[in-house]
Amino acid sequence: MRIVVLAGGIGGARFLRGLKRAVPDAEVTVIGNTGDDIHLFGLKVCPDLDTVMYTLGGGINEEQGWGRTDETFHLKEELAAYGVGPEWFGLGDRDFATHIVRTQMLGAGYPLSAVTEALCDRWKPGVRLIPMTDDRVETHVAVTLPDAAGEGERKAIHFQEYWVRLRASVPAEAVVPVGAEHAKPAPGVLEAIGEADVILFPPSNPVVSVGTILAVPGIREAIADAGVPVVGLSPIVGDAPVRGMADKVLAAVGVESSAAAVAEHYGSGLLDGWLVDTVDAGCVERVEAAGIRCRAVPLMMTDVDAVARMAGEALTLAEEVRAV
Amino acid sequence: MRIVVLAGGIGGARFLRGLKRAVPDAEVTVIGNTGDDIHLFGLKVCPDLDTVMYTLGGGINEEQGWGRTDETFHLKEELAAYGVGPEWFGLGDRDFATHIVRTQMLGAGYPLSAVTEALCDRWKPGVRLIPMTDDRVETHVAVTLPDAAGEGERKAIHFQEYWVRLRASVPAEAVVPVGAEHAKPAPGVLEAIGEADVILFPPSNPVVSVGTILAVPGIREAIADAGVPVVGLSPIVGDAPVRGMADKVLAAVGVESSAAAVAEHYGSGLLDGWLVDTVDAGCVERVEAAGIRCRAVPLMMTDVDAVARMAGEALTLAEEVRAV
Repeated sequence: MRIVVLAGGIGGARFLRGLKRAVPDAEVTVIGNTGDDIHLFGLKVCPDLDTVMYTLGGGINEEQGWGRTDETFHLKEELAAYGVGPEWFGLGDRDFATHIVRTQMLGAGYPLSAVTEALCDRWKPGVRLIPMTDDRVETHVAVTLPDAAGEGERKAIHFQEYWVRLRASVPAEAVVPVGAEHAKPAPGVLEAIGEADVILFPPSNPVVSVGTILAVPGIREAIADAGVPVVGLSPIVGDAPVRGMADKVLAAVGVESSAAAVAEHYGSGLLDGWLVDTVDAGCVERVEAAGIRCRAVPLMMTDVDAVARMAGEALTLAEEVRAV
Repeated sequence: MRIVVLAGGIGGARFLRGLKRAVPDAEVTVIGNTGDDIHLFGLKVCPDLDTVMYTLGGGINEEQGWGRTDETFHLKEELAAYGVGPEWFGLGDRDFATHIVRTQMLGAGYPLSAVTEALCDRWKPGVRLIPMTDDRVETHVAVTLPDAAGEGERKAIHFQEYWVRLRASVPAEAVVPVGAEHAKPAPGVLEAIGEADVILFPPSNPVVSVGTILAVPGIREAIADAGVPVVGLSPIVGDAPVRGMADKVLAAVGVESSAAAVAEHYGSGLLDGWLVDTVDAGCVERVEAAGIRCRAVPLMMTDVDAVARMAGEALTLAEEVRAV
């Protein structure tokens, strides 16, 4: 079975680990979000790609869900001592090596997709990990922040600044994947979608993770035209995000924070099946009314076995869709 | 009193620490060797400048004489796990920060001299540290190494590869500061020499440290024409280097490994005074016959006080020269 998964960071990575346990022999291609990539200290940092790679490769810090295990932060301390920031982005000493190798390879002329493949040679994540694009896409968030005079000033900031530095503490007025409209899917992305038996949207952020991937021209169309079941898992449980702050950016695109609203946001043109948590069983009818087959199953990612059961439910729903 | 010192790495840095103790109020300008600079992992590494900066700024690893105190090597371990080398060059996690800041500033268009000044803003070494040049100079060493067939193959390797990886275990057939002939002294270098009251050559390597600095067109001439005492301290004590492997590269330039021979190598056109160790008192006459005033004093850099006494002797000899 060939499965394509559109993945963001922590949620996507944990879902993939469960999927691998549920169907160890499946051939999984992950299309990774690069909209939250950022240049820091002259280095190219790809937080979502790395979270997938470290999580599946056994190098992740399990408690925080991102960064490396057994990590130290001496380099970052020294940068701060030089007065060089930002200080709000947590890069550890071990993690830095990934960014140094990546930056060096990009500087030598390799596209990000080739660099990602080379990094995965070490981590052996058990999936094929492809960035959504080799082109530069950077998610910006429009916010209103107080200026020096205490007046509100509207400005666009990098997604990481919104998410990590501000911790989504102010409303996101707009979310724009800058550069997406001119980006091309990375080599292998459209081919993987075209050859897939099933396409899954993990409980990743529908705006800044899955939404950014879908914003690369050609990817949404290829998924809609693939002619295979497309099944998603709700990142919202009981009107709140399973993890993260998805509700903050949903508001920016005019979508209420509910399992049904996210399904409607993707729409029946894209999505064939949708899993909601058992606490949201009441919305199954609404989702199905939108033309999307829906099931209520436990969606809390408490441990790898629980996630494997979720992944199994998603594949079961895909087969139901296929049988129709 | 304005003192100019031509410095390499460990020997130069330790001498400078003693000099600062001997004459705390002197205005010291250090012209640092950049011939052993190397690009590693896409970063610009300046071992000699950093050793001076860390030693005088209180951040040096005292035992090894280079690198940072309280250092860890996690980043380097990870680079090795990615199969990215070289592994023979010891860059620690804290040390990496210096190279990242430097590389970022160079990439932004600042010359190395401005970058060095910015780095020193943090370390406050108590001297003005200027690289000999902002241009690229790279010391290469010609060696004969066995090729795949076991035949000797003559090749030029980077000085660091000769010094650190091979530990000078094969003869240096030639030492070439590649690029030096087209390099210009960095801003401030010739001015500092022109305004100096005394110019000192610490017991640094006469070929790959002081010699490289003198190879930048204009520096040797400015020192010879400065009209102030130029005094050096022998890096050779009892026919062996005080530290390091200076004898290995002296052979490449046809100079015997003795305190007198190094003085003659610099020559009376450049050098006015020369300190040799008491064990080499027998060569004082030979050095003076070469037109260089010479004294035998203890030259072992056992602790900062001993080095301060050495520096004091150098300044005393400078006053003797001036009085003539």
